[in-house]
Amino acid sequence: MNYPIIAKILGRVMGLEALLMVPSIIAAIWYKESALWYLETAAIATALAVLLNLPKVKNRNFYAREGFVSVALAWILMSAVGALPFVFSGEETSYVDAFFEIVSGFTTTGSTILTDIEGMSKGILLWRSLSHWIGGMGVLVFIMAVMPLSEDRSMYIMRAEVPGTTFGKLVPRIRTSSAITYLIYIALTIILIVLLCAGGMPFFDSLNHAMATAGTGGFSVKTLSIGYYDSVYIDYVTSIFMLLFGVNFSIYFLLLVKKFKEALTDSEFLAYFGIALGAAVLIAFDIWDEYGGFWSAFRYSLFQVSSLMTTTGFATADFIYWPAFSKSILILVMLIGASAGSTGGGLKVSRIIIFFKSAAAELGRMLTPRRTISVRMNGKPIPNATVHNTLVFIGFYFLLTFIFVAVVSLDGYDFETTFASVVSCMSNVGPGLGPAGPMGSFDIFSDVSKVVLSFAMLAGRLEIFPMILLFSADTWRRH
Amino acid sequence: MNYPIIAKILGRVMGLEALLMVPSIIAAIWYKESALWYLETAAIATALAVLLNLPKVKNRNFYAREGFVSVALAWILMSAVGALPFVFSGEETSYVDAFFEIVSGFTTTGSTILTDIEGMSKGILLWRSLSHWIGGMGVLVFIMAVMPLSEDRSMYIMRAEVPGTTFGKLVPRIRTSSAITYLIYIALTIILIVLLCAGGMPFFDSLNHAMATAGTGGFSVKTLSIGYYDSVYIDYVTSIFMLLFGVNFSIYFLLLVKKFKEALTDSEFLAYFGIALGAAVLIAFDIWDEYGGFWSAFRYSLFQVSSLMTTTGFATADFIYWPAFSKSILILVMLIGASAGSTGGGLKVSRIIIFFKSAAAELGRMLTPRRTISVRMNGKPIPNATVHNTLVFIGFYFLLTFIFVAVVSLDGYDFETTFASVVSCMSNVGPGLGPAGPMGSFDIFSDVSKVVLSFAMLAGRLEIFPMILLFSADTWRRH
Repeated sequence: MNYPIIAKILGRVMGLEALLMVPSIIAAIWYKESALWYLETAAIATALAVLLNLPKVKNRNFYAREGFVSVALAWILMSAVGALPFVFSGEETSYVDAFFEIVSGFTTTGSTILTDIEGMSKGILLWRSLSHWIGGMGVLVFIMAVMPLSEDRSMYIMRAEVPGTTFGKLVPRIRTSSAITYLIYIALTIILIVLLCAGGMPFFDSLNHAMATAGTGGFSVKTLSIGYYDSVYIDYVTSIFMLLFGVNFSIYFLLLVKKFKEALTDSEFLAYFGIALGAAVLIAFDIWDEYGGFWSAFRYSLFQVSSLMTTTGFATADFIYWPAFSKSILILVMLIGASAGSTGGGLKVSRIIIFFKSAAAELGRMLTPRRTISVRMNGKPIPNATVHNTLVFIGFYFLLTFIFVAVVSLDGYDFETTFASVVSCMSNVGPGLGPAGPMGSFDIFSDVSKVVLSFAMLAGRLEIFPMILLFSADTWRRH
Repeated sequence: MNYPIIAKILGRVMGLEALLMVPSIIAAIWYKESALWYLETAAIATALAVLLNLPKVKNRNFYAREGFVSVALAWILMSAVGALPFVFSGEETSYVDAFFEIVSGFTTTGSTILTDIEGMSKGILLWRSLSHWIGGMGVLVFIMAVMPLSEDRSMYIMRAEVPGTTFGKLVPRIRTSSAITYLIYIALTIILIVLLCAGGMPFFDSLNHAMATAGTGGFSVKTLSIGYYDSVYIDYVTSIFMLLFGVNFSIYFLLLVKKFKEALTDSEFLAYFGIALGAAVLIAFDIWDEYGGFWSAFRYSLFQVSSLMTTTGFATADFIYWPAFSKSILILVMLIGASAGSTGGGLKVSRIIIFFKSAAAELGRMLTPRRTISVRMNGKPIPNATVHNTLVFIGFYFLLTFIFVAVVSLDGYDFETTFASVVSCMSNVGPGLGPAGPMGSFDIFSDVSKVVLSFAMLAGRLEIFPMILLFSADTWRRH
């Protein structure tokens, strides 16, 4: 393990985190609040950055193992330091609560411990939203876009931080790919801010909600979430943008370079929108009576499906009171999740497609054992290694879910609450069901559960493997 | 598709089912009840057997496709006819209820629609228990043990009917293997009847409970299940025998031919007992206070773990009132299930082992992509095809679970009840949670849900693939 080089990467992450305090400092000054909390955090982050830069790099060896470890450690360290503003402000009651809150931010989960959102400082609210925005597209991806790093090293880091089965490079150079991705991300975020302001939402609220939507996070500046504004326009704009941020960003790149056919016939892209619309229509029929008509029901069902499938977690209705059928569909889309290479979480639509295709191939093999059937997507065969990795990933996903459910169930809440909270954290959605539902809070859980759920969020965001490898003896063995 | 030969196999199944009416006819005469219901059923089964024997077999081609289809159809037909005694007796209120009850019997699930067990005829109770006994080890396996069938044909049928990743032949000839398996099965069942009688349980009850234990079914002749007898001796005897019937029967064969080392160091055998004891101890600590001591708690926890892990479903305690942690452990062992090649259901311990080993290999590959790591069990490498099949199986298991949950949730019961009932049926366990718990009944569900749950039980017992292939267009295509 090449420790000095890992330390250097962690140092850069600390440097970036110090810079990320600037917006909150500006907001604190503007709204006449204390800027001290953010200055102190920035000072600590800077000190750590300096310390981590001290070890001399003796060799430049950087392989998969270093990639996974740096990404896993970067996210843990970033959360440990990012929790400080909450602690300094006294607006979270304990360090565990603050840690849970910022992990929920960076992983774009959006589950909150807070119960009185409107009573929080503006600077703190902005820090929560900003953590969604930077966490959504990836902290190390951002660093690579602005600072030079060798191609090899970049590749191993991207593989570990970017969600999806394979990391598709847009252009040959990874640094350029990262930069293009971030530019598209920034452009879409700005368009959303403008559209929200145009709908009558105050600028500060628009800025925060746009960042939370872009990262598919779900933290809101209102306890009632987007439901607070009670506007058909804002509901539809948010629904559509949540869906847009759940699209693989390479689709936008293809559109930019005018490869329309390739973009619009992509299997994952089509399946993603198909599932979202299908689910929204099914639920609209189920809740038709409660909302007195198809279209008024559709407004809420589309919003909730977009919110849960992209794993954003905004709410306009307290869906814990919806019928069981609608709740099952919502849990299903929550598990499926958004597209690979987007800011959304969950298993990812492409993994579901690979699963179905390899399952169909397996059925074919059972009927005629001698036939060889290859699994194809978008016309290209999927390598066996990718199929195997996908199947193992899905297995781990359910396995970890059951282990976390077993531990969190020690708190003694009913099965629905426990199960939904764990799935929500693993998939980076945010709201659970029962007392941890969209209008509730995760404050009900014990400290042990909060730590376990924080780990679940990190495992979900980094797609399990980096977190498991961090705790695997094989990773740390000399060789 | 070779229809005449499939018809012949179905004809034999009908012939066997007519014979299976004999014990109930004897019981009915002995207890002075009506034997007419069973005579009518036997007549219908015989008529069908004759009709199905009419088509002339033109060629002897019999491949995987014919194997899956005959097994899937045999189980459906057998259940459709096996439901008749319930209907003729008027002791189930509708055909759907009767169908659910007998599917629950043959698949050794043990979920019941009945609420007043003590009020049923003895002949009907015996038919329920007998359906567990014959379904546990396999109807077609039984037919192969007593009637000659070509080796090829036997192999394809065994693969489709016997649970587990690979069908391990005990001896070169399949017919002899089936016969040995059934002889061990009969011997163990007789020992259990004697032991239960020795503990003061009446002969009729012992006979029924022994058959239900052997098939890991769970139907009881008492509403309170084994809890009715309130005997430490009966609890421990039943716990131990449930575990014994969840062992791969090839282990018993190895013991008979004195290959002790090979039998007792088998990975699945060790993991199976390890998980069962570990779970029982954990739960005993969790419910210690309620039962006032470790050993009195352990008596109930061991019984419940044995019952749910082997997917029998007997109850001595109403575990829906146990703490959430214990319930999570119970759901976990329910999902893991018993060993391959046993009468138990669930995912099977060997599949869990294969999953973990291939996951470990995958993690190794991620660290050092160029290394090739083979997955081994009991010292032998597991073929890639088996690993792939196992992973697809696990994926299908969870996928079907979620689809069934979505449909059953339309009945409007809470999430815990719906989820646990589906998992219970898929894993062939029996009791669910909530109103469908160990002291409740599945009568609460609608007819649509009962049909869906019947399908879930069949899919679980036949390990998914035969039922999916039955509904796959590819199976029926000419080629």
